[in-house]
Amino acid sequence: MIIRPHRHWFVRLFSWHGSVLSGIMFRLGLNLLMSIVAIYCLDWYETLGVKLTLAPFSLLGVSIAIFLGFRNSVCYARFTEARQLWGNLLIASRTIMRQVLAISPTDAPRISALLMAFCYSLKHQLRQTDPKEDLHRYLGDEAEEILRRRAQTNAIEMKISQWLAEQRRNGEVSDIVYAQLDSSIHQLSQVLGGCERLASMPLPFAYGLLLHRTVYLFCTLLPFALVPDLHYMTPLVSVFIAYSFLSLDTLAEELEMPFGYANNHLPMDAMCTNIEINLLEMNNQRDLPDTPKPDRYYRLT
Amino acid sequence: MIIRPHRHWFVRLFSWHGSVLSGIMFRLGLNLLMSIVAIYCLDWYETLGVKLTLAPFSLLGVSIAIFLGFRNSVCYARFTEARQLWGNLLIASRTIMRQVLAISPTDAPRISALLMAFCYSLKHQLRQTDPKEDLHRYLGDEAEEILRRRAQTNAIEMKISQWLAEQRRNGEVSDIVYAQLDSSIHQLSQVLGGCERLASMPLPFAYGLLLHRTVYLFCTLLPFALVPDLHYMTPLVSVFIAYSFLSLDTLAEELEMPFGYANNHLPMDAMCTNIEINLLEMNNQRDLPDTPKPDRYYRLT
Amino acid sequence: MIIRPHRHWFVRLFSWHGSVLSGIMFRLGLNLLMSIVAIYCLDWYETLGVKLTLAPFSLLGVSIAIFLGFRNSVCYARFTEARQLWGNLLIASRTIMRQVLAISPTDAPRISALLMAFCYSLKHQLRQTDPKEDLHRYLGDEAEEILRRRAQTNAIEMKISQWLAEQRRNGEVSDIVYAQLDSSIHQLSQVLGGCERLASMPLPFAYGLLLHRTVYLFCTLLPFALVPDLHYMTPLVSVFIAYSFLSLDTLAEELEMPFGYANNHLPMDAMCTNIEINLLEMNNQRDLPDTPKPDRYYRLT
Amino acid sequence: MIIRPHRHWFVRLFSWHGSVLSGIMFRLGLNLLMSIVAIYCLDWYETLGVKLTLAPFSLLGVSIAIFLGFRNSVCYARFTEARQLWGNLLIASRTIMRQVLAISPTDAPRISALLMAFCYSLKHQLRQTDPKEDLHRYLGDEAEEILRRRAQTNAIEMKISQWLAEQRRNGEVSDIVYAQLDSSIHQLSQVLGGCERLASMPLPFAYGLLLHRTVYLFCTLLPFALVPDLHYMTPLVSVFIAYSFLSLDTLAEELEMPFGYANNHLPMDAMCTNIEINLLEMNNQRDLPDTPKPDRYYRLT
Amino acid sequence: MIIRPHRHWFVRLFSWHGSVLSGIMFRLGLNLLMSIVAIYCLDWYETLGVKLTLAPFSLLGVSIAIFLGFRNSVCYARFTEARQLWGNLLIASRTIMRQVLAISPTDAPRISALLMAFCYSLKHQLRQTDPKEDLHRYLGDEAEEILRRRAQTNAIEMKISQWLAEQRRNGEVSDIVYAQLDSSIHQLSQVLGGCERLASMPLPFAYGLLLHRTVYLFCTLLPFALVPDLHYMTPLVSVFIAYSFLSLDTLAEELEMPFGYANNHLPMDAMCTNIEINLLEMNNQRDLPDTPKPDRYYRLT
Repeated sequence: MIIRPHRHWFVRLFSWHGSVLSGIMFRLGLNLLMSIVAIYCLDWYETLGVKLTLAPFSLLGVSIAIFLGFRNSVCYARFTEARQLWGNLLIASRTIMRQVLAISPTDAPRISALLMAFCYSLKHQLRQTDPKEDLHRYLGDEAEEILRRRAQTNAIEMKISQWLAEQRRNGEVSDIVYAQLDSSIHQLSQVLGGCERLASMPLPFAYGLLLHRTVYLFCTLLPFALVPDLHYMTPLVSVFIAYSFLSLDTLAEELEMPFGYANNHLPMDAMCTNIEINLLEMNNQRDLPDTPKPDRYYRLT
Repeated sequence: MIIRPHRHWFVRLFSWHGSVLSGIMFRLGLNLLMSIVAIYCLDWYETLGVKLTLAPFSLLGVSIAIFLGFRNSVCYARFTEARQLWGNLLIASRTIMRQVLAISPTDAPRISALLMAFCYSLKHQLRQTDPKEDLHRYLGDEAEEILRRRAQTNAIEMKISQWLAEQRRNGEVSDIVYAQLDSSIHQLSQVLGGCERLASMPLPFAYGLLLHRTVYLFCTLLPFALVPDLHYMTPLVSVFIAYSFLSLDTLAEELEMPFGYANNHLPMDAMCTNIEINLLEMNNQRDLPDTPKPDRYYRLT
Repeated sequence: MIIRPHRHWFVRLFSWHGSVLSGIMFRLGLNLLMSIVAIYCLDWYETLGVKLTLAPFSLLGVSIAIFLGFRNSVCYARFTEARQLWGNLLIASRTIMRQVLAISPTDAPRISALLMAFCYSLKHQLRQTDPKEDLHRYLGDEAEEILRRRAQTNAIEMKISQWLAEQRRNGEVSDIVYAQLDSSIHQLSQVLGGCERLASMPLPFAYGLLLHRTVYLFCTLLPFALVPDLHYMTPLVSVFIAYSFLSLDTLAEELEMPFGYANNHLPMDAMCTNIEINLLEMNNQRDLPDTPKPDRYYRLT
Repeated sequence: MIIRPHRHWFVRLFSWHGSVLSGIMFRLGLNLLMSIVAIYCLDWYETLGVKLTLAPFSLLGVSIAIFLGFRNSVCYARFTEARQLWGNLLIASRTIMRQVLAISPTDAPRISALLMAFCYSLKHQLRQTDPKEDLHRYLGDEAEEILRRRAQTNAIEMKISQWLAEQRRNGEVSDIVYAQLDSSIHQLSQVLGGCERLASMPLPFAYGLLLHRTVYLFCTLLPFALVPDLHYMTPLVSVFIAYSFLSLDTLAEELEMPFGYANNHLPMDAMCTNIEINLLEMNNQRDLPDTPKPDRYYRLT
Repeated sequence: MIIRPHRHWFVRLFSWHGSVLSGIMFRLGLNLLMSIVAIYCLDWYETLGVKLTLAPFSLLGVSIAIFLGFRNSVCYARFTEARQLWGNLLIASRTIMRQVLAISPTDAPRISALLMAFCYSLKHQLRQTDPKEDLHRYLGDEAEEILRRRAQTNAIEMKISQWLAEQRRNGEVSDIVYAQLDSSIHQLSQVLGGCERLASMPLPFAYGLLLHRTVYLFCTLLPFALVPDLHYMTPLVSVFIAYSFLSLDTLAEELEMPFGYANNHLPMDAMCTNIEINLLEMNNQRDLPDTPKPDRYYRLT
């Protein structure tokens, strides 16, 4: 089990790592600039009959908050589903290992290697990185055959299925045990299909578009609406409001596609290692990899 | 797996494709016109004792935002369910293929063709297009018999079931393996029934009606409520608020029936090709169709 | 599959059928009357020291919108669940038919009739109408025995179960096939139990009560709060706000018990016909009922 | 199926039974009193420099409405889950009865009695009442042995399981039928475990605490914030707002623990009778208890 | 079943235990201090042209309330899932016990001890405490072997699986019964995997960060925005608003990781004892531990 250190609430107030601040710094600076422009130009543009008051911005702000809240729920649900699928991958790996150890212990090391190859291949498929090295480590020469395919992770699952089919054909396992193990392999299918669904189908593009535009325009116009009331306090309040809207917008976007390397993405490297530790230990091996730990910036990849 | 290119946030601000802007341009123009009318007629109609203030519109606007938020969640849930059903179709197809390859490899090409016919028939049924060509490609002369039926997709599923029943009657598969494969066919049933449910039962009509009316009337009256406060800034703020409300309303409507050809609908053509690639590769065929890629407007059909 | 025609957005604005307008016309009229009373009595009752301002009504209005939003989600969830249960009924009927055709084709017509009797009996039970005619059509003299019972739909399910038990006792089906078919019958049980649960247990009564009262009182007092600001525009804005609150309240109530004949209720007649078409076609019968189509008011029963 | 009479919307406006009014009458009276105090003391305490305006109360009121909405969703979800579990109890009872009638009809009366004892025991366990009488009615002398135990409902389930184990040991049922029936008994386990979970683990205490405190303090201070604007209308508006907040708070609390005797709790007596009618009729018995009907106050226990 | 005493609503208003007050006392004190500073410095800093009004804070406050509401739902969902997993642990333990008693009663005490060891090991793993004593109590010398491992809870599950595998190898249980029991063991896997997922993957760190920062800054600036309107009433209203925002924020954080010892965390000690009582009684043992009861501060650990 991967354990993350707890951070004190005071540290949290001034934390930089893990936050989305770096991504919105430029836009907050822009907002600050607009605030200063607004203070100095207020008298001039009011003489032109141009004025902005806070009332319509309140209506707009609350509406945007409701829509942002909706988008956040939806993106967070994607993140949670991704995490759940990888949790199910751990459960399915353990279950297949357990069943193989009960039914046919001599084949356990081979199945363990195939399961690890499945996990690493899924990781590389989702991150669009090269699985070559990892597959060779677990599958040896067999890896080449897999690497020539397009649906590589599915091909590895097929290897497990082929092993099971052979066992059944040789009469090593009865039809009932075959059906039970096949159901466990089906759990791998569900993890694979679920991850592919999340990765290939983002949120409808127009949602992000709509919220980006309204949040940006809102933050740009806000200083002009605040300045008649707040005058010199405009920069503080304007940047504060912009910070809460922009960072929620940015965070939602980060969670939308949780399979990358960003701070709030799934630490799939650590998860793969964790599954490996479990499978090796179930095979009574003593030489286990280290339990993954976050680096000094609290990051896991 | 289908991969979509990522668009930079700056591109997003000025993106046209994938947005719902084209659908609401006319109504935004109307809103702009009303704003100009409001500016020029303000003095005249105030002399008649007619006045509108922003306060009641704030109340109304926040209420509409809450109701719009509800409708969006609901329509997005329909979109997500549709996507999940097609994801399950991929999983079920792979599972049936895997089981057939384990149990009775000689029949695999036939079952593969039936599964592809099932996918294409479902696509055509949901889009109400003509399945003739696709069914002939996969089923040959058998297609005619299917095309004469009303529940065509279900009839194709029956073909798979009949194959399985024959295997059982001939003693090729035991009752246990029959039950296991029948459960996998049941997954196709669930995808079919689920898609039919989504397609035949839209959101209660009164929801759309109610929100269309309130959003339209709200946007029409809004300039008159803004003009006493904002004067020459009325068009900008009014069109901005109208944009966020109208586009969310339009987007929800697009997501409500996700089986069409619109930008935010399910790319069922690409999904069918993706399933085909998977099934062919599981049968060790080398001549695969190209992985579907979005066109230059980021569209997949 | 039942297909509903699409209505243009312009038609939607002025649509009457399918809306809940007819149900709230009286109360909107009342609201209009109060607005006119408010305009003419404003001067008089202000001299009495009685005044109402919009600010507390804004607070109240937004709160009511939040609570209405909650009740709508909940009632819509009931509607969706009801629709899903009937979707599952179609899936379960097809599955049982498919399995019977695979296992024991000679009994298929009898099981088909029992399944149709189950669907119609469930419809009549939920609508509290007389199932006599429909049961006689499918079951002949056997119907009398069913009609003497209290739990009629469950009794029809028992008939299917008895047929299966006989097959097993006669050694026609093995225990495994018995278990597989019994699981499919269990799906009918779940549909029946789920529908009974929805029909016998409405939303806690106090929710409807609380929202009816607050919405009604709010709409009654609203004109008096609007009139100091809006004067002659009071009727327009007041009726507009009342319309959006009252119609959402009415719609939620309609969706709460989705088994009736109202516009937004489940078209269970059409659904039964749809299941019948599917079952008959699976039995290779050519003489099918017409696919149900909405009438000219877009209604299906 | 239990049917509840429908109440007209007009009756609903003035309904007392089924509402939560009786529970909050005292606190509404308090609010009325505070309003009158506020009217008479306004001039006096304003001279002391003490003043309250509505603006911060609007902010607070909307926030509380959002939090109340959250708590309501959560408590309603508990109520729905409890109802669903009891719905599943009906489904599971019917399923076990159906399977026993198919497999071993002679034992059906004994299993029927055990199922009824399970239902009544669960009811008494959840309401913390004495199950003695009900258990004796169904189990005779066997009841004493059950009553000496702490986990009584589970002990009754064990009796069904023991019967099944005996059948298997005697070779009356095959392992497959054993597994099928054991899965049905597992459904009873899930109902029992689910109900125990709901009953033993309320909402985190701090939620109720937090909302009680804020709602009470808000309602107490509200009249002082309203009085500068509304003067003599303060009592009406203040009691109205307090009514909507307090009754939602009280209703949420009632739904949190749905296993009692309150108006909006689960009518477990009626549900037990309903299950009994179903089981007896499945055993072809004619002498059935009456279908439970609500009393003249629309109440079912 | 664990029963908690009910507390009267009046007690609730002034309750200290179980609330999150102790955690936010310091920050409320800070808010009170700022209010007093604001009152005394108002005249001075207004001369500098610095002013803050409530309007932008209303917009911000409502937005924060929406975001807080979102975070609360999400954290509460984690808490509920954790509770559900432990509820499933009880159900799975009972089910395995019931099946073992039916299949192989002589092994029941051994399996009972392994199940208890599983529960305690899971508890210690989640709380990161030392399982040594508890494991020795249930497993005797076997405990040492478990304690040398990293995935200890999984290793205990493997022990149950090994027993089952032996039974199957010795021909004591048929393949069907093996598959049925293996499915029950899979339920333990799901509980273990689910708890590990919750414990190892908190909410994305940026959410907490973002809300902490905005809530703190909001509460700090609030007195300065309230003071122009409320003057001497500022401390009361400011502390009230700060209380409702800060305590909701703190409560959400507490629920996020529900496996600790805090008031609103899962009482896993009591749950383990409850499972033990159930398992011992199913084995007809009379010497049961006491039913866990909350201490005088209503706490269970």
